[in-house]
Amino acid sequence: MLPQPYLLFLGDITEPAYAKTAFGLRDWAGERCIGEFACDGVRVSTGLAFLTPAQAHAAGAKSMVIGVANPGGRIPATWLPALLQALEAGLDLVGGMHARLSGIAALRDRAVELGRRLVDVRTPPPDIPVATGRKRSGRRLLTVGTDCALGKKYTALTLAREFRRRGIDADFRATGQTGILIAGQGVPMDAVVGDFAAGAAEHLSPDADPLHWDVIEGQGALCHPAYGGVSLALLHGSQPDVFVVCHEHGRETMLGYPDQRLCSIEETIELTLRLGRRTNPAIRCAGVSLNTGRLQPAEADAVLAAERERLGLPVADPMRGGPELLRLVAACLA
Amino acid sequence: MLPQPYLLFLGDITEPAYAKTAFGLRDWAGERCIGEFACDGVRVSTGLAFLTPAQAHAAGAKSMVIGVANPGGRIPATWLPALLQALEAGLDLVGGMHARLSGIAALRDRAVELGRRLVDVRTPPPDIPVATGRKRSGRRLLTVGTDCALGKKYTALTLAREFRRRGIDADFRATGQTGILIAGQGVPMDAVVGDFAAGAAEHLSPDADPLHWDVIEGQGALCHPAYGGVSLALLHGSQPDVFVVCHEHGRETMLGYPDQRLCSIEETIELTLRLGRRTNPAIRCAGVSLNTGRLQPAEADAVLAAERERLGLPVADPMRGGPELLRLVAACLA
Repeated sequence: MLPQPYLLFLGDITEPAYAKTAFGLRDWAGERCIGEFACDGVRVSTGLAFLTPAQAHAAGAKSMVIGVANPGGRIPATWLPALLQALEAGLDLVGGMHARLSGIAALRDRAVELGRRLVDVRTPPPDIPVATGRKRSGRRLLTVGTDCALGKKYTALTLAREFRRRGIDADFRATGQTGILIAGQGVPMDAVVGDFAAGAAEHLSPDADPLHWDVIEGQGALCHPAYGGVSLALLHGSQPDVFVVCHEHGRETMLGYPDQRLCSIEETIELTLRLGRRTNPAIRCAGVSLNTGRLQPAEADAVLAAERERLGLPVADPMRGGPELLRLVAACLA
Repeated sequence: MLPQPYLLFLGDITEPAYAKTAFGLRDWAGERCIGEFACDGVRVSTGLAFLTPAQAHAAGAKSMVIGVANPGGRIPATWLPALLQALEAGLDLVGGMHARLSGIAALRDRAVELGRRLVDVRTPPPDIPVATGRKRSGRRLLTVGTDCALGKKYTALTLAREFRRRGIDADFRATGQTGILIAGQGVPMDAVVGDFAAGAAEHLSPDADPLHWDVIEGQGALCHPAYGGVSLALLHGSQPDVFVVCHEHGRETMLGYPDQRLCSIEETIELTLRLGRRTNPAIRCAGVSLNTGRLQPAEADAVLAAERERLGLPVADPMRGGPELLRLVAACLA
C-alpha cells in the first residue's frame, strides 16, 4: 500500500498534457490528495491548494507523488531541490516514471539518512509465483482494448465506482503506473518478466468473498504487435467472469503503428471469449465502452445508438454517462 | 556470442537426468565441446574426454559451461573449487541456471581479479526496443507447442539441421537457456519484461537475405494458463512464414496442471494462424512434430500414419526421422 495521502508534484512543466498523472489523481483519488506543489514558475495547476512540503506534512500528507509524465519519463535535475525539500519535510517520494527515484544518488542518500522511502511504482512485487490457472472465489471484470490509450483505465474506474454506488463491494485493480497511484496499490504488468506475468495477474485479484467484484484495468490489446503477450497473460491470470471492450470511435490503426489496423470490436469480443475460456469457461462480454471524446454530443449520441444497434450490446461512453452507462453496468452485474 | 568451445561441467551429480544440458550440448553442439570435467566421485559422463580445466584451456576451450540442470537450479558450494579452478585455468564460466554465477561473491571477486567473464545466459540483452510489427526480410519458421517440454527445441534443431543438409542457409534461433548454450547466442524469452517480449523476438531474428531461414525455438503454448503471454509475444515478434505444431502423443493435460486439458493440434493450428496473421498475413502450418518417445516403433508408426490421415498434414517424429521427416521438411520449404 502506497503512503497516502499525497502531495501532488508538478515539476516545472508548462504543458498541461504532461500533468495527466496529477489530473488523474485529482479526479479519481481526490480524497487522498492534500494539495499540490511545484518548482518556481510552473504554470500548470490541478486547482488543489498550493502547499509547501512542510505545510502538506502538517496537514497529514505521507508522501509527495510525481504527477508528471513527461516524454522520456526523466526526472530533470531542476526538480532535485523540491524533491529533497519533500524528504526533509517528512514526506516519502512516490514516482511512476521510467526513471527511478532510487536511481538518483542524491535522493537515495538523503532518504537513507532521513529514514524516508523512495517508492518506484513500476517495480513489480518480488517473488511472484508462476500462474496456477486455479479458479479463485469472488467475481472479476476486466476491461480489454482494441488498442492502447483509449480508456481501459477510465472505464474500469468508472465501473468500480458505479458498482459501489449500487452498494456492491468492489475494488479497482490497477495494472499500470497511473492506476497504481490512484488505487494506492497494484501490479505494473508491463514491468513483470514474461514467465510470471499471468502469475502477477493472479496475485493482483486474490480469492475474495463470492459477492465481491474486482474491476481490473486492462493493458494493451490481444491484437497489438508489441503488447499482445501482456494482454493475454492479464486475461489468463485475471480469469474474468465479465469483460467490457474499450474502443475509440474512429480509430482505425494502432497508435504509433500506422500500418497495423485495429482488430474490430467483434473480433476482439470473439478472441477474448475464446482465449479467456482457458481459465474461466463462463467468461462473457457485457458490452462496449466507446470513447467518443472527439465528437460533438449529438454526434456522439448517434454513434453510440448505431453501435448499440449493430452489436446488440450496451454501448456507453463513461465520460458522457447517461442511461446507457447504467445499462452497461446492469449488464456487467447480470 | 558465448565464449566457445566449451568444457562441459557435470558437478557432482549421480543422476543422468540432471545432465540434460550437457547431453544436449554434446548432441547438438558436439563440435564445440572439447571435453568434460566434474567433481571427484561423479558417476555421470557424456562420453567426451575427461579434461582438467588447464588441459581444456590448452586444447582451445574458452569457457566451462555448467551442464547440469538440478531441481531448484542451485549452484552448490561443493562445486566452488572446480569453478574457481576453471577461472584460474583461463576459462570463462557460463551458466543457464536460476542461480546466477555473478551472484556468488567468491566467483565474482576471482573473475574480476583474473579478468574472466561470468556469463548468465538467462540474462536478456539490455535495451531491447518495443516491437515495431514491421515485416522483416528473410524467411522464418517457429515451432509452437500444445504444452511445455514436449519437443519444440529438438524439433527446431532438427529442422535447422535438415535445412542445412539441403544446402539452405539456416540458423537455429534459441529462446531458452539450453538452446542458447547450444547455439552460442539467443534471447531467454522467459526472462524478458512483458512490454519488450515481442521486441526481443524481433531482435532475435533480424532482417536477413531473402533466401535465409531462421528456425526459431518456440516457448510454452498459446493455451497455457501461465506461459500463453510469452508464446503470443514470441509468435508476434517472430512473424513466422511457417510453423510446425509440436505435441506429445497421449498427453492430455498440461504438465503440472492436471485440471487443464491441452488444446488440440487442430485448435493450436487455427489459433496460431489467426493470431500470427497480425504480423505475417502469409503464415501457414507445414505440419506436426509428434513426440512418440513412449511408444514402441511399430506402435509409433501406426500413430504417426493415423495422425497424418486425420490431419491431412505431414506428421513426423524428429527422433525417429524417416521419410515422413523428409516430407515435413519439404512442406516447410514449399
